[in-house]
Amino acid sequence: MAHNLPKEVTLIEVGPRDGFQFEKQFIPTELKSEIIRRLVEAGLKHIQVASFVNPSRVPQMADAEEVVSRLPEPAGVIFSGLVLNPNGLQRALRAGLKHVEISISASDTHGRKNAGVGFDQAVARMKEMIRLACAENMGVRAGIQCVFGCVYEGNISRERILRLVRYYAANQVDAIALSDTTGMANPVSVKRLLKTLIPECGKIPLILHLHDTRGLGLANLMAALQCGVTQFDTAMAGMGGCPFVRGAAGNIATEDTVHLMDSMGISTGIDIVGVSKCSYYLEDYLTKQFPGRMHRLLQQTS
Amino acid sequence: MAHNLPKEVTLIEVGPRDGFQFEKQFIPTELKSEIIRRLVEAGLKHIQVASFVNPSRVPQMADAEEVVSRLPEPAGVIFSGLVLNPNGLQRALRAGLKHVEISISASDTHGRKNAGVGFDQAVARMKEMIRLACAENMGVRAGIQCVFGCVYEGNISRERILRLVRYYAANQVDAIALSDTTGMANPVSVKRLLKTLIPECGKIPLILHLHDTRGLGLANLMAALQCGVTQFDTAMAGMGGCPFVRGAAGNIATEDTVHLMDSMGISTGIDIVGVSKCSYYLEDYLTKQFPGRMHRLLQQTS
Repeated sequence: MAHNLPKEVTLIEVGPRDGFQFEKQFIPTELKSEIIRRLVEAGLKHIQVASFVNPSRVPQMADAEEVVSRLPEPAGVIFSGLVLNPNGLQRALRAGLKHVEISISASDTHGRKNAGVGFDQAVARMKEMIRLACAENMGVRAGIQCVFGCVYEGNISRERILRLVRYYAANQVDAIALSDTTGMANPVSVKRLLKTLIPECGKIPLILHLHDTRGLGLANLMAALQCGVTQFDTAMAGMGGCPFVRGAAGNIATEDTVHLMDSMGISTGIDIVGVSKCSYYLEDYLTKQFPGRMHRLLQQTS
Repeated sequence: MAHNLPKEVTLIEVGPRDGFQFEKQFIPTELKSEIIRRLVEAGLKHIQVASFVNPSRVPQMADAEEVVSRLPEPAGVIFSGLVLNPNGLQRALRAGLKHVEISISASDTHGRKNAGVGFDQAVARMKEMIRLACAENMGVRAGIQCVFGCVYEGNISRERILRLVRYYAANQVDAIALSDTTGMANPVSVKRLLKTLIPECGKIPLILHLHDTRGLGLANLMAALQCGVTQFDTAMAGMGGCPFVRGAAGNIATEDTVHLMDSMGISTGIDIVGVSKCSYYLEDYLTKQFPGRMHRLLQQTS
């Protein structure tokens, strides 16, 4: 296996967005900014900093504009925001963000719960958002949620995912992100889906966004790595989850993924200690334990 | 990958031994017996029920004989005990056990902490135990601890592990168990070591005993599965850890592993709900949360 693995992978930190949005206790804007600053210091080159969604439904993200206004300006770091509709995109644009993730659920039911609209309307909105973002020269990462199944609908039509990927590819987005929103992927289904989708993407990179709901996050990451995927979303401490998925649990943990890569000699450019400090700072602040392992292990054994 | 995977795997439940030994609160013998009975009902065909070690060092295992005396006698189920020295083996024999795991640490320092003797003396004891167990017609699973590294010594000599495996193979033990006692394995090191060891074992099956200390347990299991290993130790709820390893954490969780296998269409013969009930019963009794995922998820969403 070793010789099939890449020399380096890119980890995209989604903790400030996917992680924070799952927390009921409001995290002060100042602390959000401080964590983002520390993540940059730890070597993260791409950070999803907020989502521009309805503040009455996701109060944690009500300060998205304020978070963006306080971002540092380090060279070579991409800050992005998640948007689910044209209004959110306009907000991200006005806030001064240059990169967005335009995301749509492949599950009708999940989409209604998460974005307030069914699949067909979500597709129409997505197309409008892509037009708008391209017209404004924003970097666009195009996402699909629930690609490996939905807790409400079960299996998701492969044909539907394929059509979305083809649309994204035809519109020359910067990257296509496949989300296992519900943690229902397994190494076999990851390989099967990637073998279908990779040829459709041409030179556009695929990103995998994995949740560890059922403990399979890193096993699924390994399967994707063996298929040639080299970009993954991760969240410090393994925070996160979709507020509109029953039984949801965190993303794969940034520090655990960095450890896995370090141990296999694959470069990430990320300082595991720096990320771990963010993780236990947040655990301390929120007085809870997140599922990631390495930050706690480093703290116990240091 | 899918076509390289086996149709079925065997999971060996080590919760009553490796899981319980890590708990400070004494679990009453009656509850231990009840859990073992429920594990049998859930379809486990091989359960490690106790270790015959010094009760002053591992008080939780002081009732090993009593646990064995209360075992049910279901057809086709193997109950085994862990032994680290000839005295422990004699105790297991007198208690009426027909199967033992004779285990030795590949790390001198870990061996001194865990079994009270350095490597050379441990090897001499191991040879004596194998002679004794064979003379008494006991089933012998021969184990090696810390094969993927030691928190005290770092890397472990490949040559040392190879010599032990060759000795076990030459003595026709029933199975050889490789323990990642410290959770230091990664998918690349798993594949590398297995490629070296599998040819040495002939028809004797290799068992992998994985700890999820760094969150890589199931990724490592997938790597082993791809090499042809089909037997794994697991513990309900992801309990467990070596009391003499700094920062130790639990085994891969039985229910999470069953879920992984179920999702890939690989048979285990184990009822995930039955195991999960043991897990949350124990969490409730011990008023703590173990790291396994599926038992909690099944409880949340049922």
